[in-house]
Amino acid sequence: MTNMNDRPIGFIDSGVGGLTVVKEAMKQLPNENFIYLGDTARCPYGPRPKEQVIEFTWEMTHFLLEKNIKMLVIACNTATAVALDTIKDQLAIPVVGVIMPGTRAAVKATKNKRIGVIGTQGTVKSASYERAIKEKFSQIQVESLACPKFVPIVESNQFHSSVAKKIVFESLRSLKNKHLDTLILGCTHYPLLRPVIQDVMGKDVTLIDSGAETISEVSMLLDYFSIANAENKKKGYTTFYTTGSTQLFDQIAQDWLGKALAGSKQIALGGTDHAS
Amino acid sequence: MTNMNDRPIGFIDSGVGGLTVVKEAMKQLPNENFIYLGDTARCPYGPRPKEQVIEFTWEMTHFLLEKNIKMLVIACNTATAVALDTIKDQLAIPVVGVIMPGTRAAVKATKNKRIGVIGTQGTVKSASYERAIKEKFSQIQVESLACPKFVPIVESNQFHSSVAKKIVFESLRSLKNKHLDTLILGCTHYPLLRPVIQDVMGKDVTLIDSGAETISEVSMLLDYFSIANAENKKKGYTTFYTTGSTQLFDQIAQDWLGKALAGSKQIALGGTDHAS
Repeated sequence: MTNMNDRPIGFIDSGVGGLTVVKEAMKQLPNENFIYLGDTARCPYGPRPKEQVIEFTWEMTHFLLEKNIKMLVIACNTATAVALDTIKDQLAIPVVGVIMPGTRAAVKATKNKRIGVIGTQGTVKSASYERAIKEKFSQIQVESLACPKFVPIVESNQFHSSVAKKIVFESLRSLKNKHLDTLILGCTHYPLLRPVIQDVMGKDVTLIDSGAETISEVSMLLDYFSIANAENKKKGYTTFYTTGSTQLFDQIAQDWLGKALAGSKQIALGGTDHAS
Repeated sequence: MTNMNDRPIGFIDSGVGGLTVVKEAMKQLPNENFIYLGDTARCPYGPRPKEQVIEFTWEMTHFLLEKNIKMLVIACNTATAVALDTIKDQLAIPVVGVIMPGTRAAVKATKNKRIGVIGTQGTVKSASYERAIKEKFSQIQVESLACPKFVPIVESNQFHSSVAKKIVFESLRSLKNKHLDTLILGCTHYPLLRPVIQDVMGKDVTLIDSGAETISEVSMLLDYFSIANAENKKKGYTTFYTTGSTQLFDQIAQDWLGKALAGSKQIALGGTDHAS
């Protein structure tokens, strides 16, 4: 064990979605320190071209590398789908995405071998889940559906509203008669809509939130690479950065993480691109 | 994904104990191929000096490396305790031990923060579990106990006998009043004695068999390093080697793994040391 193990674990997302992964991290890894960056100003990533998502993901990554993170969690499905491999190849620290953990959990959960995947346009277009699932078990049928309206509902802090319920109902209608027993919430924003999604899909459908499974992978890799923080070292701080409104970010973070948190700090990424 | 992913995952143990880990592998990883080496002729490892265990573990490792394994599982607590770090440092393939997975499972399971660890003399002397548990949560009390009589009972295929019951009862007597709620089976042979151990400890004590947790780690690392075997590739073979009696090995393997297996092959390791 080195004395560098109290360095934070970094999390990046297009906005507030990755908080659903951080929530699990705070629960499962009480000895660790975390640093979070949500690129709210440029959210959503889902409709953006692949090359741009890769570029933005690199910008977030560089920001956190300067904060001396010891591990990077790409807590965003859209970014994982297109940027994980290249970032992992080029960094000296371990890099974890959310797609393989979600895949493993879903393959384990399904009994009737019919899995649904909902995500952003970018994630669905990448077919990352479908490919990963089929490599594990080719007999599984996968139904993928892009739900472009979900991220904006969450980012605008309307996920408790009746509008949310209506949009979720209309979006998922086409999945209802596919006899799925498992549905992957293939976007880290979606767990904030979980009660509504569960309601629409019915209680017999198992919803897979990759957060818990991703943090199991993080926990294992901390041990594997001997970089876990010991309990007696500096621990338990979480720092939040956003490229957007700190007020909206803090409201959602406090609501979702359920405790008083130090407020987020606003930062700028990628020069002039903020207005896009 | 390379086309080398149908290479087998290697398992090594001092004898038949690692079969309890292989059993979980066959269940959780149906697409993978396995190769197993049990050093039965030199079992038990528990009472041997650390240097000798390291030497024997390297001999097993070299045998499997020649079989072109893509990952090595040290499915033996005694060998993990003293040899994992050095072997992991020196191999180009991923190397997994059984102590950290068992530790994670136990820390997650305990409610009263009192964990017992039973293992060989070598494992208990190394204090590996105690150290790993305390780094995660220093307030947990750990009671360790060496049970040198257990491995010989298993290796001689007497784990169903009344003698086994008597020995387990006597060995664990001193742990009975320690108010443990969790007991780590810190030797891969011990799950074969699980019903007896559970009986002696009482049904309220959670027994941690590191096999399942270890294979979860293997599964994640296969994905992490992109070396999982795809379902449509050559899959599902398991080859067994032992340095001891193939007859006794095959009896225990068939009994424990519960299916008709190709018989094991006998091999020699380390020159003249076999008689020891």
